[in-house]
Amino acid sequence: MSYLQQNQERFLNELLDWLRIPSVSADPKFHGDVLRAAEYLKTRLEEAGLENVELCATAGYPIVYGEKLVDPNLPTVLVYGHYDVQPADPYELWDSPPFEPVVKDGNIYARGACDDKGQVYMHVKALEMMSQQGPLPCNVKVMVEGEEEVGSNNLGTFVRQNKDKLKADVILISDTGILSNEQPSIEVGLRGLSYHEVEVTGPNRDLHSGLYGGAVPNPINVLCKMIASLHDENNHITIPGFYDQVAVLSEEERAELNRVPHSDDEFKQSIGLKDTYGEAGYTTVERIGIRPTLDVNGIWGGYTGEGAKTVIASKAHAKISMRLVPHQTSAEITQLFQRHFESIAPSGVTVVVKPHHGGEPVVTPTDSVAYQAAAKALETSFGKKPIPTRGGGSIPIVAMFKTELGLDTVLLGFGLDSDAIHSPNEHYGLFNFFKGIETIPLFYQNYAAGMKQ
Amino acid sequence: MSYLQQNQERFLNELLDWLRIPSVSADPKFHGDVLRAAEYLKTRLEEAGLENVELCATAGYPIVYGEKLVDPNLPTVLVYGHYDVQPADPYELWDSPPFEPVVKDGNIYARGACDDKGQVYMHVKALEMMSQQGPLPCNVKVMVEGEEEVGSNNLGTFVRQNKDKLKADVILISDTGILSNEQPSIEVGLRGLSYHEVEVTGPNRDLHSGLYGGAVPNPINVLCKMIASLHDENNHITIPGFYDQVAVLSEEERAELNRVPHSDDEFKQSIGLKDTYGEAGYTTVERIGIRPTLDVNGIWGGYTGEGAKTVIASKAHAKISMRLVPHQTSAEITQLFQRHFESIAPSGVTVVVKPHHGGEPVVTPTDSVAYQAAAKALETSFGKKPIPTRGGGSIPIVAMFKTELGLDTVLLGFGLDSDAIHSPNEHYGLFNFFKGIETIPLFYQNYAAGMKQ
Repeated sequence: MSYLQQNQERFLNELLDWLRIPSVSADPKFHGDVLRAAEYLKTRLEEAGLENVELCATAGYPIVYGEKLVDPNLPTVLVYGHYDVQPADPYELWDSPPFEPVVKDGNIYARGACDDKGQVYMHVKALEMMSQQGPLPCNVKVMVEGEEEVGSNNLGTFVRQNKDKLKADVILISDTGILSNEQPSIEVGLRGLSYHEVEVTGPNRDLHSGLYGGAVPNPINVLCKMIASLHDENNHITIPGFYDQVAVLSEEERAELNRVPHSDDEFKQSIGLKDTYGEAGYTTVERIGIRPTLDVNGIWGGYTGEGAKTVIASKAHAKISMRLVPHQTSAEITQLFQRHFESIAPSGVTVVVKPHHGGEPVVTPTDSVAYQAAAKALETSFGKKPIPTRGGGSIPIVAMFKTELGLDTVLLGFGLDSDAIHSPNEHYGLFNFFKGIETIPLFYQNYAAGMKQ
Repeated sequence: MSYLQQNQERFLNELLDWLRIPSVSADPKFHGDVLRAAEYLKTRLEEAGLENVELCATAGYPIVYGEKLVDPNLPTVLVYGHYDVQPADPYELWDSPPFEPVVKDGNIYARGACDDKGQVYMHVKALEMMSQQGPLPCNVKVMVEGEEEVGSNNLGTFVRQNKDKLKADVILISDTGILSNEQPSIEVGLRGLSYHEVEVTGPNRDLHSGLYGGAVPNPINVLCKMIASLHDENNHITIPGFYDQVAVLSEEERAELNRVPHSDDEFKQSIGLKDTYGEAGYTTVERIGIRPTLDVNGIWGGYTGEGAKTVIASKAHAKISMRLVPHQTSAEITQLFQRHFESIAPSGVTVVVKPHHGGEPVVTPTDSVAYQAAAKALETSFGKKPIPTRGGGSIPIVAMFKTELGLDTVLLGFGLDSDAIHSPNEHYGLFNFFKGIETIPLFYQNYAAGMKQ
């Protein structure tokens, strides 16, 4: 019986305890819980045999750091993850409370089960397991932040101020997914992000829609019109200059990309859609992988309670984000959006655009020792060669690590698209959790071997 | 010292007590309070000398009825009003709590202060005053409902089932306003209403905007596009057939209408607008008085909490209402809207349109004995001839009274546009409250005299 088999119940229970701590970084009311989640991780890293484990203070939530340096001649892997989670609302759509994890049908249901506590905890337990079985094949540094879901605002400063401490040969992150439990894959492209909150003000107070309707700009109608104008009839984004820097792929590259196993029928069925949707001229895989997007993530204004209220609201709000692709930059798109959105406001209203946070798009190399080590590890544990994919999500810090530390990243994630991260009923497969713990040590072995050559 | 002067403090305090009862008909959590408000009114009507005062059960909230029949040869006036109020949210925008009335700077601040408890209570006190001073010049029936703010769904049935009990010569309602405290006016035209709640569903669950963005219909973006398409660049409404029945006024009628004292500058200033807004080719007075409109009264969907959440919502919602003018009908416009809104949904989404309630537009005669009696009463109490106006609001039951009882209505209201009804900080002037109590008995005298001739 392997160490993993002997200890899997304890591994799981420790993760469930961590998931019980609602570490929602976006909402100040969970402040104490976010700190508790960091403390919990610190203790578990110490128990796993890491050294110099500490909570590094930042202007926001602390970064949990630990290391195990076995030999200066061995390569060093810097593991990154995050212990904060997305807000869990709407709570009423969860089948079980988001911070009372349950294991059901082979899945762990809880906010953060997959994104990213479950995936971070695979590393903690893989390191414990490796420490029990002999000296590590590489030096390992672990850095887990608490502000990934709100833009990693303080990570850049920390990295810049601790370049020596963080010196390494490669970054290893488990915060992405595989195509399926039968077909492993490694993400090699990630989209960037530009996120805004907008406010449209019409009259200076709420008005009776009968006494004023027709003679005043209704900020909700105006906001809808402004948002609608951001796409044309082909679902192209209309912001001037938006596509100027977008990398154009060759026909060969597009054909290669579309070789990924994908069925529009299964895609539609998995999320209950009657029809595909998106930018004209691109496949679903391309729409998600290589094209930038603009989505409203939230909208609110006026009367939203039960029944009817005949009011014209003074203000309307929306959260609007854009996913970016190489070689767009978050700063430039943020500026283009802000300028354009303000410019399309009709003369009777006031518009305020407040940028929230951004992240840069990135493409990682597939010919590196680290990528090959990860691919071989997955092939061993799954019994099948992984496929390189371009995911639609953003891990903005991947680009930052490249700029600040000069390091490439390997995205060794084990989630599934169906895990409902950022949604009600987020879950993570027990299969995936334990497969991750099994695969990670193989990566270290392969990487150490590859770096020796 | 007049009876009004002697008793005005008591009159006011009784109204304040009534305003303390949060009779919000739209929200089930106020159920008991709505009933308490009805009981309160019943007791006050009895104290004012009315007879056969009762709470008449309906399928919803009861109708408070009372009468004072002095002589079968005298004409009968049926007074209508409502004791329910609009929801008070957003509570945080009120300077004082909506159900803890305060008197400040000559105004009563409370939800319902003007609409319609304050105006109903003028009638209660005018009747008390008249009873103290001798026999009434007319027979009086009073009928006050508790569901006006949610569409008066049970009033029609009550009226149809009680035609004998409600037999009268004219309806008198105080639920409208005057141009200013220096310039009295009487509304002779009211817009109708068609009110809907719409729901757009895209994917069957909330999705991560990175993993899915660009390849699925975002229901918020789709809803915005659908709403935006309901107006063209001239702010005409694009629903096919919408304007087919709209009464076209002659140049003379339009000129007459625009003779009402109105300044666009003052209008803009009063509500903090930088520019006027509305349908091309019409003045502000026309946009409010004689043109139909379409306004979104509320919108919600996705993440609306603090910070950023990169979600694509499964559903988006809006409350959309249209103000109607003669000779549009609520039933026809409701059907046109529903059919059109469903037809413009893109193929990937599901749209549900749920009509809330409606009301018919109406124009009341100015050459009737009742209108002339009201005009003369206002001229006496204000010292200035009133102007007939066409207001933008809806009192749907005016059309119903005409159909079911064959009766015209006189809209003897004393509110001001600036009273912020349906908004935070609703208020009603002490001047207006007491001026109403002073004017109403003059109406009865003039009406009795006019009907004798």
